[in-house]
Amino acid sequence: MNTPRLILDADRLERNASRMRSRCEELGVTLRPHLKTAKSVDVARVAAGGVQGPITVSTLAEAEYFAAAGWRDILYSTAMTAAKLARADRIQREHGARLLFVLDDEATAAAIGREAESLDARFGLLIEVDCGEHRSGAEPASAELVAIADKIRSHAPNLELMGVMTHAGHSYAFDAPEPIRALAETERRAAVESAELLRANGYPCPIVSVGSTPTALFAERLPGVTEVRAGIYLFWDLSQLSRGICADVDLAVSVLASVVGHQHRGPALILDAGALALSKDVGANRFMPEAGYGIVCDAATLAPLGPLAVTTVHQEHGNVPVPDESWFARLPVGSLVRILPNHACLTCAAYSSYDVLREGKLAGQWPRVSGW
Amino acid sequence: MNTPRLILDADRLERNASRMRSRCEELGVTLRPHLKTAKSVDVARVAAGGVQGPITVSTLAEAEYFAAAGWRDILYSTAMTAAKLARADRIQREHGARLLFVLDDEATAAAIGREAESLDARFGLLIEVDCGEHRSGAEPASAELVAIADKIRSHAPNLELMGVMTHAGHSYAFDAPEPIRALAETERRAAVESAELLRANGYPCPIVSVGSTPTALFAERLPGVTEVRAGIYLFWDLSQLSRGICADVDLAVSVLASVVGHQHRGPALILDAGALALSKDVGANRFMPEAGYGIVCDAATLAPLGPLAVTTVHQEHGNVPVPDESWFARLPVGSLVRILPNHACLTCAAYSSYDVLREGKLAGQWPRVSGW
Repeated sequence: MNTPRLILDADRLERNASRMRSRCEELGVTLRPHLKTAKSVDVARVAAGGVQGPITVSTLAEAEYFAAAGWRDILYSTAMTAAKLARADRIQREHGARLLFVLDDEATAAAIGREAESLDARFGLLIEVDCGEHRSGAEPASAELVAIADKIRSHAPNLELMGVMTHAGHSYAFDAPEPIRALAETERRAAVESAELLRANGYPCPIVSVGSTPTALFAERLPGVTEVRAGIYLFWDLSQLSRGICADVDLAVSVLASVVGHQHRGPALILDAGALALSKDVGANRFMPEAGYGIVCDAATLAPLGPLAVTTVHQEHGNVPVPDESWFARLPVGSLVRILPNHACLTCAAYSSYDVLREGKLAGQWPRVSGW
Repeated sequence: MNTPRLILDADRLERNASRMRSRCEELGVTLRPHLKTAKSVDVARVAAGGVQGPITVSTLAEAEYFAAAGWRDILYSTAMTAAKLARADRIQREHGARLLFVLDDEATAAAIGREAESLDARFGLLIEVDCGEHRSGAEPASAELVAIADKIRSHAPNLELMGVMTHAGHSYAFDAPEPIRALAETERRAAVESAELLRANGYPCPIVSVGSTPTALFAERLPGVTEVRAGIYLFWDLSQLSRGICADVDLAVSVLASVVGHQHRGPALILDAGALALSKDVGANRFMPEAGYGIVCDAATLAPLGPLAVTTVHQEHGNVPVPDESWFARLPVGSLVRILPNHACLTCAAYSSYDVLREGKLAGQWPRVSGW
């Protein structure tokens, strides 16, 4: 068997997807799953319970891929620039999709507005507001926000302001429910108060979009919010487990690897899963220092193999220290293990497809899209 | 223009390639370029000055890709296992290539030998010896090494022992010529003394293979060595620059990115090149702490833009702190920059092709192979 391979447990995926759908129903909001992790039409169908509903993507390559496969309501959540508009327009025209994009300043609104006119293209957009992560976004409920909306009305007749969005990416700083719950309320207020201010200025704002998996799960209530974006909940990973956001039995993706050597100095197992197969993300280590580049598990059951973790990576080699050489008999060269990744978004990105398991048995392959 | 994109300066590449060819001629050894960084037939041709000579690869996907394009002498340098032999056999048969592989223990030699017999397939192999990196390899010039050779002779009639190989990967721990020069001699002795011991035991060992870019460049002489493997010298990167192994004008790959936002809190530029476009490798930071996830340069000249570096990455966003907001006028939203990557092997892996520059102008696209 050729390894490394990316394994997706479809039973766990379905349970994860169904739980978030119930959660959003409970909260009275639309779920707009973020597909930057999965990048797969098959996963997207599971996420929405079989239908082609609203989705979020992080690249125009994803937008193109999902539009070509029939999705019609696609939010491209990385800030748009004028130079990318022609491609976005082609995606809309060729596939009959509607692209929503985001921006957060006046000059960009004007530049994109001009470009949309010259392309004779129409787009919907959301203004991004910054609920505290300080990555991007205008100040919530601010004069700046109204100025952007005014600029769109006066200088960008081809753009339709559909509302506001925010992302509490800083929810990953915590490993307890209380601060995440508080942050969910901060995120909600940033979006809702921004929408209210815009409405008071004559902009209807039918969409009020918030999201991050932790805040979606821990929010107490979301009055005023119309939709939630979340993605990692479909697969989960050690970064989320280490923060107490999911349970170990929820983890749906893993990397199947082979033991390719025994190193007596150490001692250590050498796996054929290194920096490319796992990524160099060590995000789980903040709250789970033993995670290394990934926790090593039994290939059949996905139960952790004692304390084993990948502690060093080279491009194609992963080094797994073992307590003693008795592990060499237990895991001879050629044997298989599965590795739980730190950060599923980055690990999955190295693979062109998932090997899909149902009831523990290989049940097919699902392709993924990559690149930009 | 769609960004991020991977840019390869073909003029720099040719100069880098030619310099290493001259160096190997000077040392009297064959150059077997390692194509795990480039993963491109076009780059491989430049590396060998237009011919299809011996090459090194790190995955069977690379072996298959180069064999299909006409390469005949391919060293697969990640330890082989029996389960991968059928695919290696297909690559040899379908494309008329000769695959050399490596192993470092008796049990694996026997298992692979049995599998080769059952496939009725013949392979050449090198025994890997450990010159001090302690990743993989048998003890140099040891009884263990002879025992592996004996096992191949007695239990693996379809395998032809062609010699030994070693890799001084620990040369990256240094940023000065002297310790690297000493290590090159350690690497040479590990390989040559191992080959001599095997010859004394009746194994001819026509191939004595060493390699890492730093040791290849700094070795004083390589008597007894027949070939050198090196790869990163084709492109170079900040990790190598930070160690004084190359000059800034040698760096041949960079990532073209767009400014997609201005963050007034900070202040910072937001780029559309994040963890996927750059990788999360920060290997240059050990000796160049200002490198962050990559140094930000002028898109046309590749001159560094003052102190700008990507200091934080999200999946598709890179955050670049600027000294003051005057940088926002200099780099408005929509403007382009180029980013010098930490570790070219990992950064390139995210892209399916290179945009190739000649004399600073776009001169075509070269595809890359990826996956396993």
